[in-house]
Amino acid sequence: MKGAAYMGGGRLATVPVDVAPPGPGEIQVAVAYCGLCGTDLHIVHGDMDARVRTPLVFGHETSGTVAAIGAGVEGWRVGDPLTVMPLVWDGTCSACLAGHQHICQNLVFVGIDSPGGLQQRWNVPASIAVPLPQGLDLRTAALVEPVAVAVHDVRRSGLQVGDHAVVLGGGPIGVLIAVVARNAGAHVMVAEVDASRRSRVAELGIEVIDPSSADMVAEVERWTDGVGADVVFEVSGAAAAARSATALAKVRGTIVVVAIHSAPRELDLQRVFWRELRLLGARVYQRSDFERAVDLLGRGLIPAEALISGVVPIEEIASAFDDLSAGRAMKILVDVAGEARA
Amino acid sequence: MKGAAYMGGGRLATVPVDVAPPGPGEIQVAVAYCGLCGTDLHIVHGDMDARVRTPLVFGHETSGTVAAIGAGVEGWRVGDPLTVMPLVWDGTCSACLAGHQHICQNLVFVGIDSPGGLQQRWNVPASIAVPLPQGLDLRTAALVEPVAVAVHDVRRSGLQVGDHAVVLGGGPIGVLIAVVARNAGAHVMVAEVDASRRSRVAELGIEVIDPSSADMVAEVERWTDGVGADVVFEVSGAAAAARSATALAKVRGTIVVVAIHSAPRELDLQRVFWRELRLLGARVYQRSDFERAVDLLGRGLIPAEALISGVVPIEEIASAFDDLSAGRAMKILVDVAGEARA
Ligand SMILES: [Zn+2]
Ligand SMILES: [Zn+2]
Repeated sequence: MKGAAYMGGGRLATVPVDVAPPGPGEIQVAVAYCGLCGTDLHIVHGDMDARVRTPLVFGHETSGTVAAIGAGVEGWRVGDPLTVMPLVWDGTCSACLAGHQHICQNLVFVGIDSPGGLQQRWNVPASIAVPLPQGLDLRTAALVEPVAVAVHDVRRSGLQVGDHAVVLGGGPIGVLIAVVARNAGAHVMVAEVDASRRSRVAELGIEVIDPSSADMVAEVERWTDGVGADVVFEVSGAAAAARSATALAKVRGTIVVVAIHSAPRELDLQRVFWRELRLLGARVYQRSDFERAVDLLGRGLIPAEALISGVVPIEEIASAFDDLSAGRAMKILVDVAGEARA
Repeated sequence: MKGAAYMGGGRLATVPVDVAPPGPGEIQVAVAYCGLCGTDLHIVHGDMDARVRTPLVFGHETSGTVAAIGAGVEGWRVGDPLTVMPLVWDGTCSACLAGHQHICQNLVFVGIDSPGGLQQRWNVPASIAVPLPQGLDLRTAALVEPVAVAVHDVRRSGLQVGDHAVVLGGGPIGVLIAVVARNAGAHVMVAEVDASRRSRVAELGIEVIDPSSADMVAEVERWTDGVGADVVFEVSGAAAAARSATALAKVRGTIVVVAIHSAPRELDLQRVFWRELRLLGARVYQRSDFERAVDLLGRGLIPAEALISGVVPIEEIASAFDDLSAGRAMKILVDVAGEARA
């Protein structure tokens, strides 16, 4: 059995994986696919060296089947399809006690703070295993985690049927937010500076605009009959997007901060005050978001194949990251099972 | 009859007032007292010359009695005590139609955009007249408007009994927010850089801290057993306060932007994301806030006398503004009725 590990210093390696039996309360997953995301790219670029312990088997967008079941685990059979919600909380901090376990102050993010899914056998707590419907193929199911992010962001926004939502940023998460918001009954417009990303969004039948050339405020005013957007999702992480978000939202409109902003950003607090805007942070997901994501994918409501740019074997992860880094790909999956599948 | 007017170019004057009978739907108010606030100071300093039409009889923190009643007005008798909620909305814009008339996109703020209460006779739409209880003295009642601001801010914050609230800024609105939040069952801490303001806050039995010398984050952590503040009210308008607000709020905590920020402010959006914070703008008040303010003052729950630094006749308004400008006063009332009262 094998896996992929970040070795530190910006180096990746294919590594052998010892298969230990699952401990009490654990499930052993035979990982099928694992998606690569922006966070993984940060890890591989060395941006998170201060946080991670190497060698780290990373990866947290997984699908697979049950390979073995540890003592005390009920409700699962070998061969059951599953995905893993990669969050482990302490259950004792003030955030957990207030019911916000997903933003636990001591959150362990599986695949960053503990071993992840880029390995052929992976032991995880049964509590974070999420069953998949039999009809959902495992390749599509590798998208559950990013779809759950989008579901959480849309739910937190309070979006209503008929609302106008602007999504600033047309990368994988921005597109998924747009799709989930459209499924929820909203009119959606995506703003994205990259032309190839814009054409992918347009192919999904979603209105898309180039914020570097269009007058965003005028366009959104026109699109909403002068009212402004009900919800603005800031997914780009760009300083300019943070500035424009307040200009796009209607009176009492909502701005959801989904992106990671690496530095403090200038924000028009006068506009926040004048229009009684609401700015909300939204991070990861709750169990219900994960289950909703499984449901959306299971019902074919997410254009999964349009989002998957390619599938690579474990040995070619480095080139996949090159493609992601250069913006040549939307979502790349790793075929973790590989020849072991056969 | 006389009044006070802003003449433009930073000049004030006492002016004669023509007493026209109230029109249909109007009430003529015999103004008793009118408080001066920071917005009035901005007008008088010429900062709002682009907005106001001079000569402007300004003033919007009023109390008085009914002097005359226009055609078609019901429910009022001459002599009834009243205050005026100084907002007139169009009722037709998208904000109004969504039920947010107080932030109408074409809001007329009475006393800025139309004649205000610094005159002995003042005709106002009966729809914005708010009755006062007989037992409430008119001097105290001049505080209804700023108390309504505080009521609105606290209501919008979603503050709960037992919450810890930090108020950044110890001027009149900051102190009123602190008092209203305490009445609502919260633990309150005020941060204020000015020593004389700090001692006024301390005299009200409210915890107060100097953000220029104390480590605010450490103090709030200690005060909340490491949890952070449930609510932070940003009332100071200072860039440093905007920066620190996100550091003080707990996971899923709320920051209310009450102050006018004259320039874009740097905000830690990473913290907004990481802790799933909520930032809310809060502006003026709704009718229910005004009525709640009347109720709080009527029941003696606001330390009105501790907040009123002095009462001046119309002719001495200029010196009152000098005192406000120099930070020598908290709230100054104008005795508008003056000798006419006798
Ligand atoms: Zn926790
Ligand atoms: Zn309106």
